[in-house]
Amino acid sequence: VEAGSEDTSVIDILRKTRDRSPLSRAEIEYLVSGYVTGQISDAQAAAWLMAVTLNGLSITETAHLTEAMLRCGPTIDLSSFRPRKVDKHSTGGVGYKTSLIIAPIAAAGGLIVPMISGHSLGHTIGTLDKLEAIAGFRTDLTMHEICATLTKTGCVIVGANREMAPADRKFYALRDHTATVESVSLICASIMSKKLAEGIDGLVLEVTTGRGALMRSEAEALQLAEFMVHVGRAMSVHTVALIIDADQPLGNFVGTGLEVMEAIWTLSGEGPQDVTQLCVELAGWMFVAGGIVDSIGAGCEFAQHLLESRKALAKFRELVIAQGGDVRMIDDPGRLPSAAGRLDVLSVTDGYVTSIASERVGQAARILLTDRACTGEPMTDPTTGIALCKKVGDRVTAGEKLYTIHWNSDGNLSNAKRVLSDCYEIADRPPPARPSLIRSRIV
Amino acid sequence: VEAGSEDTSVIDILRKTRDRSPLSRAEIEYLVSGYVTGQISDAQAAAWLMAVTLNGLSITETAHLTEAMLRCGPTIDLSSFRPRKVDKHSTGGVGYKTSLIIAPIAAAGGLIVPMISGHSLGHTIGTLDKLEAIAGFRTDLTMHEICATLTKTGCVIVGANREMAPADRKFYALRDHTATVESVSLICASIMSKKLAEGIDGLVLEVTTGRGALMRSEAEALQLAEFMVHVGRAMSVHTVALIIDADQPLGNFVGTGLEVMEAIWTLSGEGPQDVTQLCVELAGWMFVAGGIVDSIGAGCEFAQHLLESRKALAKFRELVIAQGGDVRMIDDPGRLPSAAGRLDVLSVTDGYVTSIASERVGQAARILLTDRACTGEPMTDPTTGIALCKKVGDRVTAGEKLYTIHWNSDGNLSNAKRVLSDCYEIADRPPPARPSLIRSRIV
Repeated sequence: VEAGSEDTSVIDILRKTRDRSPLSRAEIEYLVSGYVTGQISDAQAAAWLMAVTLNGLSITETAHLTEAMLRCGPTIDLSSFRPRKVDKHSTGGVGYKTSLIIAPIAAAGGLIVPMISGHSLGHTIGTLDKLEAIAGFRTDLTMHEICATLTKTGCVIVGANREMAPADRKFYALRDHTATVESVSLICASIMSKKLAEGIDGLVLEVTTGRGALMRSEAEALQLAEFMVHVGRAMSVHTVALIIDADQPLGNFVGTGLEVMEAIWTLSGEGPQDVTQLCVELAGWMFVAGGIVDSIGAGCEFAQHLLESRKALAKFRELVIAQGGDVRMIDDPGRLPSAAGRLDVLSVTDGYVTSIASERVGQAARILLTDRACTGEPMTDPTTGIALCKKVGDRVTAGEKLYTIHWNSDGNLSNAKRVLSDCYEIADRPPPARPSLIRSRIV
Repeated sequence: VEAGSEDTSVIDILRKTRDRSPLSRAEIEYLVSGYVTGQISDAQAAAWLMAVTLNGLSITETAHLTEAMLRCGPTIDLSSFRPRKVDKHSTGGVGYKTSLIIAPIAAAGGLIVPMISGHSLGHTIGTLDKLEAIAGFRTDLTMHEICATLTKTGCVIVGANREMAPADRKFYALRDHTATVESVSLICASIMSKKLAEGIDGLVLEVTTGRGALMRSEAEALQLAEFMVHVGRAMSVHTVALIIDADQPLGNFVGTGLEVMEAIWTLSGEGPQDVTQLCVELAGWMFVAGGIVDSIGAGCEFAQHLLESRKALAKFRELVIAQGGDVRMIDDPGRLPSAAGRLDVLSVTDGYVTSIASERVGQAARILLTDRACTGEPMTDPTTGIALCKKVGDRVTAGEKLYTIHWNSDGNLSNAKRVLSDCYEIADRPPPARPSLIRSRIV
């Protein structure tokens, strides 16, 4: 009887979520720690994840889940730093290189930014894959190196190491092969348990929506943003969320080295308008969340000043040096490795660009990035990608360049061309005025 | 890419059921055979079962699932028998000893009854546990012995052996610990894949409803009956279902040997009215399904004749002898082993019985049956149980006997008494006229 009693309580928990009856904090803690320690089977956890995906968890249950996952792993001890530790998180999108730009702006403005980031996922390219295009740049720092880098430069951009977030690691692997990735509560707990483990005081969330994003609809993006803000604030972290339109790629470049190049231009005050505008506001909110300024107006002005004065660019140089990267590539982006081939794709008609199929641009970039030349594990090519010459609303004439494919392998090129075909929609009349890039804010 | 493709298609299947998109026959076959052969993990199968439990499967998908499960295991080859092979299945209830009575009636009437039955489950007592109260009675016959017994007596009541229904065995174990037992589609596929593996021409389903049954509500019972009838007919089996009221126990005895005794009385034409009425109609429909009679009227008349002429009782004797049981216990039920102690529970008030908490009577019987005297595996006690002296609608006076507990262990007795306390509801006025025991029929 005693041996079975643990199992019975797991089944009771599954039954509750199945029947839309709320779980207590203790039940959620029991489930998470039981799964991480192996007392609860993959099958039971998978059944629960499916019940959550179909029935949802309340915002309160989601907060308990996040805390339980957070408690399963170590947190970064940043108590020796001043209380201005702020990070940002993005649900990602095609061409989203904001992390590369915002971390140095925020650190240049006096914040401590312990950014733990990821590799590529789905059709988006990871921040770490982009940084690794800089020769020598290391993203696998030890906890000691993370603290040393933060002390020296005020920011660090690294991957999660083996010890961090064991609950999320185990749950994520299971979700990935049980069709339970698409759940607002599970996405929220996964993101927030990792971010809150950084020991931060403030957090700015960039929640993307549209065809290039994880959350296709604005309603889903808003719900996810609300859950994350609630969970962050419940843990006493100053949390702000922006809902961002990711219906078309951000900026003009999609790739690894290509996006680093665009980030450097933006840090030099010469970036595309959309990238600059978004990064200035995100950094502005980080200054608000970190208590450096009182208003978003002052935050944006400060961020703009750090770009124009090139202080943010200088901070990015420091970061690259501190993480072992070849700083000559920052000083002269022409030194970033480049692809063997370039293929220009031209417009066959006159008109206006009314939409760009972001998700297909992302897929094509992922295809081009896969370097199978060397036998063994697939590597990420630091040179390939897509450069967009036209964005939504732009006028084009027949024969004018729409985009350029930077490629290294014939096979990848032909696959990418197939995926990209007709990804530009061109019509006689200009599209209706687009809503603002930043759709809404939870502040 | 090739290695991952199998996994991708499983995830697509999970995603479809999660999103209420129907699965094709091929997808369901792939899922079932993949799980049985171990290509699909417990976690993936558990996630799918939870999605099915929450979103349901259509009647067509349920038929595909049943067929796929059926095809994973061997079927019984009864091709050497005349085409009058008919079985019945009951979803069970407290005091339901109908299988013990119907199988001999049907066989005495010329049908071949290859009944594969089960041990106790939940709060109901299995047919096999009851038969095993007869000293020597073997329920674990080999396939060869099953065919030999059928040739000799026309009926057999056995448990599933190791080779039978491997898909159901594996799925059931998983459902049991992932809170996915309660799904009409999964229950239907589980029952019907086993019954259809018997190679039968006709099938009569006894679908119970009420507090003593698997399906609490009549609507759920009806849905399950409709699914099972559809699936049986889709496989060209003449299938009939009766929806039965199991709100109070059937007959007067709940236990193992006690129920065998009541079955013998019924087979002798001296059973309680409810047991007799139900068995006559169920057997009547078996004769219809087997093509022995043209109408249920003729079927019931035939069944009644087989009881009154004691031909059904003679067939039960043959069955007991063929399966190795001590036939003296049939000829003189007083020889069935009896419990050491009896405790009469008396009414403290005058009035009418308005309800009996069936599920608690069942739980108490299960407690009394558990024989832990011998160290090691718990055994089923062949002697204990509950004898009900009053049924719903009966008049009682203070001090009159309501029921007798037959017990062997002090511990079990006190637990059973606790579970049984107040299981009789007694009021001043008689309850409203009860609806018929057989609530509805799908014929």
